[in-house]
Amino acid sequence: MQRLLITNAKALVGTHPTGTRILAGAAMAHLPMVEDAWLLAEDGRIAAFGPMATLPKNSEQADEVIDAKGGYVLPGWCDPHTHAVFAAPREEEFVDKIKGRTYQEIAAKGGGILNSAKKLRAMDDDVLFEQAKTRLQEMMLQGTVAVEIKSGYGLTTESELKMLRVARRLADALPLQVRTSLLAAHALPPEFADDRSAYVDLIVNELIPQVKKEGLADFVDTFCETNYFTVAEMERILVAGAAHGLRGKVHVNQFTSIGGIPAAVKHNALSVDHLEVMEDVDIDALVGARTIPTLLPSCSFFLRIPYGPARQLIDRGLPVALATDFNPGTTPSGNMNFVLSLACIQLRMLPEEAINAMTLNSAAAMGLADELGSITVGKRASLIITRPIPSLAYLPYAFGTSHIGTVIIDGRAVKA
Amino acid sequence: MQRLLITNAKALVGTHPTGTRILAGAAMAHLPMVEDAWLLAEDGRIAAFGPMATLPKNSEQADEVIDAKGGYVLPGWCDPHTHAVFAAPREEEFVDKIKGRTYQEIAAKGGGILNSAKKLRAMDDDVLFEQAKTRLQEMMLQGTVAVEIKSGYGLTTESELKMLRVARRLADALPLQVRTSLLAAHALPPEFADDRSAYVDLIVNELIPQVKKEGLADFVDTFCETNYFTVAEMERILVAGAAHGLRGKVHVNQFTSIGGIPAAVKHNALSVDHLEVMEDVDIDALVGARTIPTLLPSCSFFLRIPYGPARQLIDRGLPVALATDFNPGTTPSGNMNFVLSLACIQLRMLPEEAINAMTLNSAAAMGLADELGSITVGKRASLIITRPIPSLAYLPYAFGTSHIGTVIIDGRAVKA
Repeated sequence: MQRLLITNAKALVGTHPTGTRILAGAAMAHLPMVEDAWLLAEDGRIAAFGPMATLPKNSEQADEVIDAKGGYVLPGWCDPHTHAVFAAPREEEFVDKIKGRTYQEIAAKGGGILNSAKKLRAMDDDVLFEQAKTRLQEMMLQGTVAVEIKSGYGLTTESELKMLRVARRLADALPLQVRTSLLAAHALPPEFADDRSAYVDLIVNELIPQVKKEGLADFVDTFCETNYFTVAEMERILVAGAAHGLRGKVHVNQFTSIGGIPAAVKHNALSVDHLEVMEDVDIDALVGARTIPTLLPSCSFFLRIPYGPARQLIDRGLPVALATDFNPGTTPSGNMNFVLSLACIQLRMLPEEAINAMTLNSAAAMGLADELGSITVGKRASLIITRPIPSLAYLPYAFGTSHIGTVIIDGRAVKA
Repeated sequence: MQRLLITNAKALVGTHPTGTRILAGAAMAHLPMVEDAWLLAEDGRIAAFGPMATLPKNSEQADEVIDAKGGYVLPGWCDPHTHAVFAAPREEEFVDKIKGRTYQEIAAKGGGILNSAKKLRAMDDDVLFEQAKTRLQEMMLQGTVAVEIKSGYGLTTESELKMLRVARRLADALPLQVRTSLLAAHALPPEFADDRSAYVDLIVNELIPQVKKEGLADFVDTFCETNYFTVAEMERILVAGAAHGLRGKVHVNQFTSIGGIPAAVKHNALSVDHLEVMEDVDIDALVGARTIPTLLPSCSFFLRIPYGPARQLIDRGLPVALATDFNPGTTPSGNMNFVLSLACIQLRMLPEEAINAMTLNSAAAMGLADELGSITVGKRASLIITRPIPSLAYLPYAFGTSHIGTVIIDGRAVKA
């Protein structure tokens, strides 16, 4: 048995009771802690923890002992919305945007998602894998212990499958948990410009069954947005996904409110993501639903679009999850620590709410709440040990600095 | 003689000709480069550079050779506006702000600057020094090679002098260049609540002469703002500063436009800083002046106040400098790399403009344009070598990641 002991934590943060799968509304501000504490992991799982006064006498038998030296120990970040497999950064479009071109204009002139698709289709699997691996390794060092990765830069059967296979290889090659979503409905490929329903047919009749057969995806996604896919098209995809055991995690309300949220709720989507533009009807549809609103503040930051209404959602008793949206066009950052700062500075979430949103709730938003997201006996010992910091609020507050000391995934320290 | 050779730079960036002291208007987009290059430093100064094809044959005689491995070499960041000497972070006020209290409300209930002053007055010099040293060491590792530090958390003769002496000790203890500003007029100390003119008298008649006598400050500053110091009070301080050889670097137009800029220009201030709230008359006053508009986008980010009008200033033919504003209340970050991202994402500056603004122009905004801010023979060899990145625009674009490889100050690598 492999034993890891952590001692002298200023506090273990997020010690939610067994069975806590999501936190909604006022409960999001509740972040239980054990102060001045130790934690024992056995074979990669949290086995026990408690205040230092209760440190077991035989603790020196651990294979590894990490002295947290007064750092906080938190559940590792769960990032439930990324496009981390992509062919190339797109900083030339970033400069175009500074010069005044809009996201939609760049897309219209053949840039945007279709630019990424063109490059990805031409790229060798192994190169794609190695580049994404480097990105995920950096994310792990920044505290991310679970990541959802979407397809959506292939837009052909072959290339979408290629992306998902790369994502599965990443799951095998790296210690962090990886969940995958089929996002073939990310943009209409040029080959189908004159026949959009044929592309949705291809997704429904060919891609979803093939993905299911190969076990390549855990979820199905759609970019439901003006100029991308309609609510009706998303519904067809969600129905086909459900028939194959793939729940929906969908892009809705990024630029316009067109009815995507009520439709996603109707089809029992696991999450609705983005939500920068919300009307009352959208929030109303989420009340009482099992669908998790997931906000992507780094995207708002980079695109200078509105931030999702975290306070309104919480005040209505809803849960909020947070993710990076890491992608080369609209969010070239996979750093969840910056998401934490944005959540507090821009979304006006309390530090406790934001930490719950990027641990327990974001684990839930990728179907991992029984495995990750809190310091609970039996869960994976995937943890962040911070550098010594004066308080938990210092984490989001001091936004220009890394506070990550050591990252542990399944009981083992991640190495640079 | 101490020789440092850098080889295999993807490019040397900012190779401005000797004598270029500031870039204004359209010239700000001009960032000259030498591609695939080497650079030689001798005794801490840039001695020579050129394309790799011209690498001198005896180059192996250098004491140290750094292979840049395709990273860019840039002038190190100059940060011409900080409050980096302070007693304690103020994350509890940050949480108060999330709960809806404004900066002014927090100040009114005894928080804000006066909170910092209370703690600083009680703090031992050596503790103050050690804490600030840790902050500056982190800033150096993030690429900052020169920093301006203000007093202003003392607000008594004794404590203001204490802060400036600590800043001078930091200059002696660390390799980066330090310039200091007397900001006794940062907030009205409670002892003078009923007699504000007596406090200005104290600054003019006692502090400025004493600071000059001890050589403790290079500049004089005033927080010219509604509820802080009036334009007339700032003018008294600028006149007294000038009489003692201290040029003004002043806080103006952060929350309101009350005439501080025309007054600062009239008194030949070196820089006017903040500028979040600008009227036409303010911009008009800067045209043709020798006063450098200095923007602090991290402050806007953290306070959610407007960003300074960089594009308008540049379009009017003006120079723009950038700084962090590092301080515990409104900008708890000394990271100039994040300022670069904000400059491009939020201020809509081109990467070339932003890099010039935080190297050559920010050196000028602290009187160091002959020493730093460009890759020019004879200047200090204080440089950033980036990790391998695909393009210069990638620096601001990939905002969640550190791109700093090695930082060199006066020809020697900074160690963690």
